[in-house]
Amino acid sequence: MTLETTLDPATDPGSDEDLMKRRELTLGQHSPLFYTKPLELVRGEGVWLTDADGNDYLDVYNNVPHVGHSNPAVREAITTQLAAVNLHTRYLNDRVVQYAEKLLATFDAPLERVFFTNSGSEANELALRIARQHTGNTGILISDHSYHGNTTSLAELTTGLKVKEPLGAHVRPLRIPDAVGLTPAKQRKLLAQALSDVDEAIASLNKNGYGLSVFLYDPLFSTEGLLQTPPGYIEGVVERVHAAGGLVIADEVQSGFGRTGSHMWGHQAFDTSPDMVTLGKPMANGHPVGGVITTVELMEEFGQNNTYFNTFAGNPVSSAAGMAVLDEMADRDLLKNAQQLGNRIATRLKRMARGNPRVRAVRGSGLFFGLELVQPDGSGQPDPAATKFLVEDLRKRGVLIGRIGRNDNVLKMRPPLVFEAKHVDLMLEKLGLALASLDDAGDTPGPPEH
Amino acid sequence: MTLETTLDPATDPGSDEDLMKRRELTLGQHSPLFYTKPLELVRGEGVWLTDADGNDYLDVYNNVPHVGHSNPAVREAITTQLAAVNLHTRYLNDRVVQYAEKLLATFDAPLERVFFTNSGSEANELALRIARQHTGNTGILISDHSYHGNTTSLAELTTGLKVKEPLGAHVRPLRIPDAVGLTPAKQRKLLAQALSDVDEAIASLNKNGYGLSVFLYDPLFSTEGLLQTPPGYIEGVVERVHAAGGLVIADEVQSGFGRTGSHMWGHQAFDTSPDMVTLGKPMANGHPVGGVITTVELMEEFGQNNTYFNTFAGNPVSSAAGMAVLDEMADRDLLKNAQQLGNRIATRLKRMARGNPRVRAVRGSGLFFGLELVQPDGSGQPDPAATKFLVEDLRKRGVLIGRIGRNDNVLKMRPPLVFEAKHVDLMLEKLGLALASLDDAGDTPGPPEH
Repeated sequence: MTLETTLDPATDPGSDEDLMKRRELTLGQHSPLFYTKPLELVRGEGVWLTDADGNDYLDVYNNVPHVGHSNPAVREAITTQLAAVNLHTRYLNDRVVQYAEKLLATFDAPLERVFFTNSGSEANELALRIARQHTGNTGILISDHSYHGNTTSLAELTTGLKVKEPLGAHVRPLRIPDAVGLTPAKQRKLLAQALSDVDEAIASLNKNGYGLSVFLYDPLFSTEGLLQTPPGYIEGVVERVHAAGGLVIADEVQSGFGRTGSHMWGHQAFDTSPDMVTLGKPMANGHPVGGVITTVELMEEFGQNNTYFNTFAGNPVSSAAGMAVLDEMADRDLLKNAQQLGNRIATRLKRMARGNPRVRAVRGSGLFFGLELVQPDGSGQPDPAATKFLVEDLRKRGVLIGRIGRNDNVLKMRPPLVFEAKHVDLMLEKLGLALASLDDAGDTPGPPEH
Repeated sequence: MTLETTLDPATDPGSDEDLMKRRELTLGQHSPLFYTKPLELVRGEGVWLTDADGNDYLDVYNNVPHVGHSNPAVREAITTQLAAVNLHTRYLNDRVVQYAEKLLATFDAPLERVFFTNSGSEANELALRIARQHTGNTGILISDHSYHGNTTSLAELTTGLKVKEPLGAHVRPLRIPDAVGLTPAKQRKLLAQALSDVDEAIASLNKNGYGLSVFLYDPLFSTEGLLQTPPGYIEGVVERVHAAGGLVIADEVQSGFGRTGSHMWGHQAFDTSPDMVTLGKPMANGHPVGGVITTVELMEEFGQNNTYFNTFAGNPVSSAAGMAVLDEMADRDLLKNAQQLGNRIATRLKRMARGNPRVRAVRGSGLFFGLELVQPDGSGQPDPAATKFLVEDLRKRGVLIGRIGRNDNVLKMRPPLVFEAKHVDLMLEKLGLALASLDDAGDTPGPPEH
């Protein structure tokens, strides 16, 4: 190993400062990085990552390595197919068909066809294109703090990230109702108000000549901070959208592949079906794969009117990687794992939160969970500084997490699905210590490493 | 091997009809396929492909497997990195920086920065977005028979493929001048007319309030049929575009990575530099990778105004795959190979064409070449039926090619860059036989396998 290490620059990259400088001179100064002092990661295995100095981190952030970092089954699938053949779908290849069959079997009718893509951005872009052609309309309903990808069409509907494009004149952002902590009566009132907002947004699109093309939503409302919509909200929106001639797209880039523990797909938690589902991130454990699941009708119509081809998408190597993820999920019962661990985490986080004035709510489902942090003065005001402190502090304690939400005050905890009970215990222990150190640091801590 | 074959459905997929049916029930009826009777390919090595019945084909079509099908160095690079770690660029990883450095070293100043993407579509989409923000304009100049990707923005400027979107009101298609067979005097006249068309298109964009954002072009004009522009055309267009405040994007998805034999990048054949270069297909030998090469100024401006992030792009596995392609190109001197074989092919195709009334022109450069086929009656009318016959006939002779051009009458021959002299000889022998059988089949042959 010594010789190999010497020959391999990836494990001997010179100083961090040198690497940062070289990165700026190639990828520029604005390519985003996590942490005040960026982290160089050189090894991964299961739920563990190792930095260039040999420090280990429990990964409670990354959902892309869905079945674990450096998963041997995924690697084997990719390597074996790379040794056989890798070609586009204009030649027949059984791999893509096998994978499509297995993937589609996890959806309910009428979601029976798949377009493969290379990313979630490509998937959302294609789904919007299909919807625009089908409806003849351009109007879009979106949440008021969301992100669905980096193309121009998607930038024009981005509300949760900095983009130069102004919000499209054809876009109406919806304030998604959050029922956390409300009585049933207040939830009903909130629901009525939120659905009335939807009626108003649709009326405005019609009045301005856009008509309604789609409602695009993340079933977990992740970027928004893992909102908990009142019962009947999604069903009510979908009903209104369909009545107005629009289509519904569930963006399952974050909520899919069993992440929520309760269902394979996030939208299945609601009593209604979307017309399209878009997939990405965890689909092939980091191999660039995305997809649009849709109906026979929508696919046929789009196919008749457009020659749609995507060079890399659906190639046999990408398909083998995607298949290996589904196989690993089945073999290791990862949906059930997400549910069981999710319950364990929820129970213990609630216990931890009880009596802590800094925690307004425990959020999430399955293996995507968060704590919403507020000022400890009882004002209920969001505390993004404390949230940032915890993210940085946990990194020093060897645990990687992130933060989300309109006010950047929700801890984002979303580990690979091969997380185990012992990892839960370790994570909660470190989180407890971090919360305690927050109190030591005072009421309004700055980030620890400026 | 017998046991493995039995256990591996990819090599024992049942009948072709069964696979076709299963494909329709998952990917739909409109997912494009080559050939009247589609071809199932299950193995590849170097420039050779093998179908499910064990027949071998010389691959003179596929540019994506740039350094050869199942290239062991690319496979090794991917496998090794998959065993180490695969993460997005929000953590530091030396792999992406090393690859960016090596890739950027092949460009001339001021093209000194790179955004990685997962496909050529994502690359063109991003380049258009950058240009629109920089110029504040939306107008686009495009060739009148071209294809640059499958997003909505790109569909609105697609002129060479069926899309339902009407051509954007902000798009002006240019008839690209083709100088094949013209005297220098006629070339000068053609040039003057073509540049006057550009002036008119820019004036029209300004008059209609769009202004000029970009001229987007493929330096080989591949989809158009490998046009040969008169000397000074590209330089003249670029001058006019810059004078009007627009930017120039060279789409090198087809012309890049030494394909033309004369230069690493197609645009380097002209005496002018684009502001952005977009990359795709051959970049990582089939692993989904694309990129936008741009200037410090454009990257900085875009980075200041947008949080741009792409989950899969620039990950260390994709970077290792891209690096392996550059290493293979250098180790095997593939640019020189493309040049030497390209010269050999051009000479021999010209000899073959001489006196053949069906061949109007030998086209292309390096390892992207074509024959333009016309009616043998001396009318000079395009002969797409004969072109299709040749593609199908060559498949029966074990050679894979395609066709391109406004009239679908140019043979598209674009093999992996590891093509060798013996493959050239074999290809030309088969092409000669196919051309002869075309005469046997009569003047207006139908496709052989309807």
